[in-house]
Amino acid sequence: MTDDRLVTLAERLYRVCVARNLTVATAESCTGGLVGHAITEIAGSSAYYVGGFVTYSDDAKRGELDVPAELLAAHGAVSAQVARAMAEGARRRLETAVAVAVTGIAGPSGGSPDKPVGLTYVGVADAGGADVGRYLWTGDRTANKVASAAAALELLLERIGEPA
Amino acid sequence: MTDDRLVTLAERLYRVCVARNLTVATAESCTGGLVGHAITEIAGSSAYYVGGFVTYSDDAKRGELDVPAELLAAHGAVSAQVARAMAEGARRRLETAVAVAVTGIAGPSGGSPDKPVGLTYVGVADAGGADVGRYLWTGDRTANKVASAAAALELLLERIGEPA
Repeated sequence: MTDDRLVTLAERLYRVCVARNLTVATAESCTGGLVGHAITEIAGSSAYYVGGFVTYSDDAKRGELDVPAELLAAHGAVSAQVARAMAEGARRRLETAVAVAVTGIAGPSGGSPDKPVGLTYVGVADAGGADVGRYLWTGDRTANKVASAAAALELLLERIGEPA
Repeated sequence: MTDDRLVTLAERLYRVCVARNLTVATAESCTGGLVGHAITEIAGSSAYYVGGFVTYSDDAKRGELDVPAELLAAHGAVSAQVARAMAEGARRRLETAVAVAVTGIAGPSGGSPDKPVGLTYVGVADAGGADVGRYLWTGDRTANKVASAAAALELLLERIGEPA
């Protein structure tokens, strides 16, 4: 049910966060819940994973993560700015040490010349600020979701100083 | 990455909801995002799937889904009452036609004589009320999550009158 690479990353995240007493939240658009699913494949993950949001619509991004409507209008849902705002919103809402957010175009439809299928931004926020990664996947819908979820777990590990 | 049975159910849900113009939200505890992941494996699912919540902690169930603290204290997070309240909360928060919620003990730890590993409740709420299903899975953590996600999609289809 879950890609081995995701489970390996989730195991590492579990070990590091429990050892360092860090709590984590997720905010997912294109991955639809896959990051949370991977995290919770590890028994005992409730010790550090508080929960998350699947904000598939713009309304949900505004209502559940407090992403400003102006930011969505100016940059679009698939943008570095919105990835960052989603991560900051999830962290604030769930009061965690760190939060990760994913927004992208999994495909096969939804792409444009400016924002092609596979374009994905991952944002990670903690008390010290935020990082955003930009990716351009070239797989099918499922492969792009898996690649995005792996990137989310990797950026989380990087941000907390324990790169995978 | 995703069980064939889940994708088949998600395809059916996609077809029915788009045809009937129904919107859907999810609220997941033990499945950790797997229901949302399965739903969003179908291209075009954003036409009916607004989003969801992964409320892994009791705090998240209270804060994000408005599950009353008294309900959690009286019945526990894994209960028919909380499954129903989670579904109603997700539906209200995301203003959808219908919402599904899953709460259970995926294992291997967390069980008790009263509430053994594998015990899972699925709640589905719409404007007409709510249904709750009770299940007792006997697989490992991953198998129990998959079985719970399948039950969630099946109960959704049942509630909207299109049983799988």
